[in-house]
Amino acid sequence: MTRIAVDAMSGDHGAPVAVEAVMASLRAHPDLEIIVVGDADALNKEIARHRKADVGDRLTVQHAAEVVGMCESPARSLRQKKDSSMRVSINLVQQGSASACVSAGNTGALMATARFVLKTLAGIDRPAIVSPIPSRRGHTLMLDLGANAECTPEQLFQFAVMGAVLAEAVHSVDSPRVGLLNIGAEEMKGNVQIQQAGKLIGDSELNYIGFVEGDDIYIGDVDVVVCDGFVGNVALKTSEGLGKLIAQFLREEFSRNALTRTAALFAMPVLRAFRRRVDPRQYNGATFIGLQGTVIKSHGDADAVAFASAIDVARMEVEQQVPERIRTLLAHSLGE
Amino acid sequence: MTRIAVDAMSGDHGAPVAVEAVMASLRAHPDLEIIVVGDADALNKEIARHRKADVGDRLTVQHAAEVVGMCESPARSLRQKKDSSMRVSINLVQQGSASACVSAGNTGALMATARFVLKTLAGIDRPAIVSPIPSRRGHTLMLDLGANAECTPEQLFQFAVMGAVLAEAVHSVDSPRVGLLNIGAEEMKGNVQIQQAGKLIGDSELNYIGFVEGDDIYIGDVDVVVCDGFVGNVALKTSEGLGKLIAQFLREEFSRNALTRTAALFAMPVLRAFRRRVDPRQYNGATFIGLQGTVIKSHGDADAVAFASAIDVARMEVEQQVPERIRTLLAHSLGE
Repeated sequence: MTRIAVDAMSGDHGAPVAVEAVMASLRAHPDLEIIVVGDADALNKEIARHRKADVGDRLTVQHAAEVVGMCESPARSLRQKKDSSMRVSINLVQQGSASACVSAGNTGALMATARFVLKTLAGIDRPAIVSPIPSRRGHTLMLDLGANAECTPEQLFQFAVMGAVLAEAVHSVDSPRVGLLNIGAEEMKGNVQIQQAGKLIGDSELNYIGFVEGDDIYIGDVDVVVCDGFVGNVALKTSEGLGKLIAQFLREEFSRNALTRTAALFAMPVLRAFRRRVDPRQYNGATFIGLQGTVIKSHGDADAVAFASAIDVARMEVEQQVPERIRTLLAHSLGE
Repeated sequence: MTRIAVDAMSGDHGAPVAVEAVMASLRAHPDLEIIVVGDADALNKEIARHRKADVGDRLTVQHAAEVVGMCESPARSLRQKKDSSMRVSINLVQQGSASACVSAGNTGALMATARFVLKTLAGIDRPAIVSPIPSRRGHTLMLDLGANAECTPEQLFQFAVMGAVLAEAVHSVDSPRVGLLNIGAEEMKGNVQIQQAGKLIGDSELNYIGFVEGDDIYIGDVDVVVCDGFVGNVALKTSEGLGKLIAQFLREEFSRNALTRTAALFAMPVLRAFRRRVDPRQYNGATFIGLQGTVIKSHGDADAVAFASAIDVARMEVEQQVPERIRTLLAHSLGE
């Protein structure tokens, strides 16, 4: 049995979406138990809208009176909202009542609370945010995506270890290729930190393939791309922006006049297949990695399909014992 | 008359592409003169393949015996290739024989040579690489795209001034909105440099709109996005990679079977219009800004259409007196 706590109140859509995702996950995985956390009345009402028979007693409700706002400051929510659905979900992991938690709440508050309550693994200075990015040959894991604006070479090395564990454990990549994000043509004399990180990773037992550039993320010749959270966040947001721009340009071109709208009818099935392939919902669920416990961040405006993907990420990481494996590989890589 | 030096030997395709672009530019702009630089025999042979009559004596050839390789180290090319087409082109600008030069040669060598020969403008610590990026409402200028991996707040401020001048002078944007690239959700206490840069830009006469995120580049609510060269280069390369991935996915979906290939026939005119709209060739020509003279970098594998775009960028910057305007605005912004 894998038991996961789901913060059902945070995020843009709250309980209805979270509960629908929870029901779907429980039906798909008979070995899964879920504790939904939030306002008990609201949650029970929402659960009553679904057929509960086929999930049996694998679904329980844990009351939490407060909700962390999507724009609330991490420090404030940490200090003042000790009975929030977010905090209670993480507490359940800390107490051992759940092995992982999933929340669509605000990233800063979730990270601050997770760090405060769960603490980092031994040998890990700071947790990182990691997520799969679609590539030509499947996907690439990238970290850090925004938790740490500035990183030491040691932290970048720890990210490399954590990314490699995730690629191997959850994405079934044998001896994952680890690359360090850098810029190409220039002399780079300034950036000592990346040179040193390269040396640390190169000297370890990881399958280090050296520096990679921004376009390599999407080519698929590297399994884990390591960078600081500033660069990673900019790369991620830039990609989101470009993706939306291209989608809009395609829509505009296909709706320009009667002729192009006819073409759209013919092209529709193909465009739908294309869309499924790049559907960000299947990539929903970023891991806060490096904590004593598994915390998965769902996108704030995730629908039920996307939210269920995030629950699935949590389930797989628990089953594959990701935190334990990080501890082992880290000790091994440092020659302990 | 605007006179431009064109390094016709560097880049992946050398003289044939450069000369074709030069002929097209001269025909399109009767006020333009071009000095093509490189192996005189090879260039004259190439020029002979075109009708020279309609460009008259506005085309001259300047011999240069060497070529800087695409992977040659900047330091080596600077020291050892004093008669390269790249170096001679830049020398022509320094001597006043040309007002700008265009090269498709390797970025590092071009930047190192341009800095060494031309020097930066008074008040500018380091030149930056700037280029327009397509957005929903036209395009966004972004700098630095890779010349300076690490930047001081003062340098970021100088980039803001230079970007604003370019937006106003060449892209006809009144009072361009300047944003500083940052990451959103997090506390950012680490990154003092960006906070300080924000203060410098905010205190100046520039139209500073504050921090922007990666996706804002493509939305079009900001005219100039300022960042250090590491982040800028990663954002640019990441976008290139994603663009190629999406193009490949579309191709694959449309060629999957007989049905989708039929759909492709109907969709073709629309897809072509879409392609024209995102065609990177129309955005070819990155400016090395902040130098005492205008240097434009064309993409290494630019075809003649793209190369001509780069020549056009040079022509406009000369006509709009970009370096002089930077000097003026910089003095003004510093309250001198």
